[in-house]
Amino acid sequence: MGVGTLLLRQATILLVDWTIPNIEQVPNLKILQLSIAGFDRVVKQPLYTDTKITFCTSNGIYSTKIAEHVFLTLLSIRNSFDQLLSQQRSNIWDDSTYPHPKDLLGFTIGILGYGSIGRQVARVARALGMNIHAYTSSSRRTPRSKIDRGYLLPGTGDPNGELPDAWFSGTDKPSLHAFLSGIDVLVCSLPLTDSTRHMLSTAEFGILGKRKAYLVNVSRGEIIDHDALTMAMKEGLLAGASLDVTEPEPLPSDSELWGMGNVVITPHIGSAGEGYLARVVDLFETNLGRLSAGERMFNIVKKGKGY
Amino acid sequence: MGVGTLLLRQATILLVDWTIPNIEQVPNLKILQLSIAGFDRVVKQPLYTDTKITFCTSNGIYSTKIAEHVFLTLLSIRNSFDQLLSQQRSNIWDDSTYPHPKDLLGFTIGILGYGSIGRQVARVARALGMNIHAYTSSSRRTPRSKIDRGYLLPGTGDPNGELPDAWFSGTDKPSLHAFLSGIDVLVCSLPLTDSTRHMLSTAEFGILGKRKAYLVNVSRGEIIDHDALTMAMKEGLLAGASLDVTEPEPLPSDSELWGMGNVVITPHIGSAGEGYLARVVDLFETNLGRLSAGERMFNIVKKGKGY
Repeated sequence: MGVGTLLLRQATILLVDWTIPNIEQVPNLKILQLSIAGFDRVVKQPLYTDTKITFCTSNGIYSTKIAEHVFLTLLSIRNSFDQLLSQQRSNIWDDSTYPHPKDLLGFTIGILGYGSIGRQVARVARALGMNIHAYTSSSRRTPRSKIDRGYLLPGTGDPNGELPDAWFSGTDKPSLHAFLSGIDVLVCSLPLTDSTRHMLSTAEFGILGKRKAYLVNVSRGEIIDHDALTMAMKEGLLAGASLDVTEPEPLPSDSELWGMGNVVITPHIGSAGEGYLARVVDLFETNLGRLSAGERMFNIVKKGKGY
Repeated sequence: MGVGTLLLRQATILLVDWTIPNIEQVPNLKILQLSIAGFDRVVKQPLYTDTKITFCTSNGIYSTKIAEHVFLTLLSIRNSFDQLLSQQRSNIWDDSTYPHPKDLLGFTIGILGYGSIGRQVARVARALGMNIHAYTSSSRRTPRSKIDRGYLLPGTGDPNGELPDAWFSGTDKPSLHAFLSGIDVLVCSLPLTDSTRHMLSTAEFGILGKRKAYLVNVSRGEIIDHDALTMAMKEGLLAGASLDVTEPEPLPSDSELWGMGNVVITPHIGSAGEGYLARVVDLFETNLGRLSAGERMFNIVKKGKGY
């Protein structure tokens, strides 16, 4: 038996990337800290389903990078940036084809899933002068319920949930549709679960189309019915779409979405960056500290909820 | 004599775009409100130099649009966004060439010229988690001196000058160089005057090169010595450059800057947008209100300073 295997057998607390050990490998494990944020690809692993081990994600450490991606791609579409870059490649200085978009001041951004990513998107949106509408599955009427319970990079996000001008909630279609009817930009930043799969489809794009909204998806492709989205884009319902995640991934090369001028497709790189290890270690240390102090650790995955 | 000519002769207060009347056309004029922000192309007009007419710019109404441009282009360079868009045009999903940049959290942005544009850039930078260093020609040590005296779109900018973590000032090279030595991103948002022309040249790029900073110019091309910039880029001193303004404009088609992968060149469209007329009218009304109340109007161009 190798040293690594032996250590693994003894471990009561383990920090891993996204590799989940087999149950037999970790007979003493109590706590598993993951360095990834999304839990949907772990939720069916036996170590999670068949044990009482506490799983913690690294939710919170990627929010700044993803928020940058949201505004890079949104502003790119609004400014026909692709065309500006094409002109540059031909050494052409020409302002005649520039679309002269309004800036985002006074527009309303709707944030579907107001966790660490949604809250950092809100922080940047507010700085740009936007109004903010938040949507969560559970109701957040009291100040206490609005607090972000997850791990937070200092100086980021919306720790107390104070930024939204309006807060919608529910798991039913009418609540979702009421939220969608008032926004100019929709950002999807909610976890993928069985109840959020294909949450956005024909009816939802019809509602978004009334204000000719933009769509930005940085959570999971499966949140969106891509056939319905393709149709909505062809009908000109939406002003644009930024998809860092698709269904399936990779997006098939014959998808019509690739060639649309107001669609930006990126290969799931929204959170890809450097410097995360230090943040994961910070989070792990914080969680160990809270554990010793008898406090609740950050980012514990709730059995049943799956995030 | 036409009606327009007659009205012009009677006018004591006039709102114009950027067209400056001849002195003879406006014998009764006391106040001229411009709808543009930059004054450098007006400063030598006889109506300004040879009369006592009060000139007001529309400084302040373009800050949100320009701040969006700053972060669109900066993030584009950091994320090799041009390459991502190229892949999309070929229906290619490939994350292997993505540069995995760090997000901007914890980096320091230096803002050269802390007026309405610089302050809105600071607001967004702070939301992204950046540290902020400001530079102004005059010293701003007291809270009172840090206040933005210009017109401000509600909910934007940094009205009280509270965002900078450090504030540098001076009109001498050592002060400028001290400021430049501590920053990762330099944004030029200062007016062009005889004393700011070619403010950034070989020595300054050498200092910026020590931290391999990014350069974003949204003020006037003439602030930058473009030969020195081309050389600095070729030597790899800077991580990237975003130039919405160049010297001269258009940038000559044989400039080597066009073809550099870490340079974004846009044809002076940073402030180009829609919806400004309402903002100009708001500003004009505000100024008329202040005039009747005996208060100082916003954005009066100071004779001698030229902005």
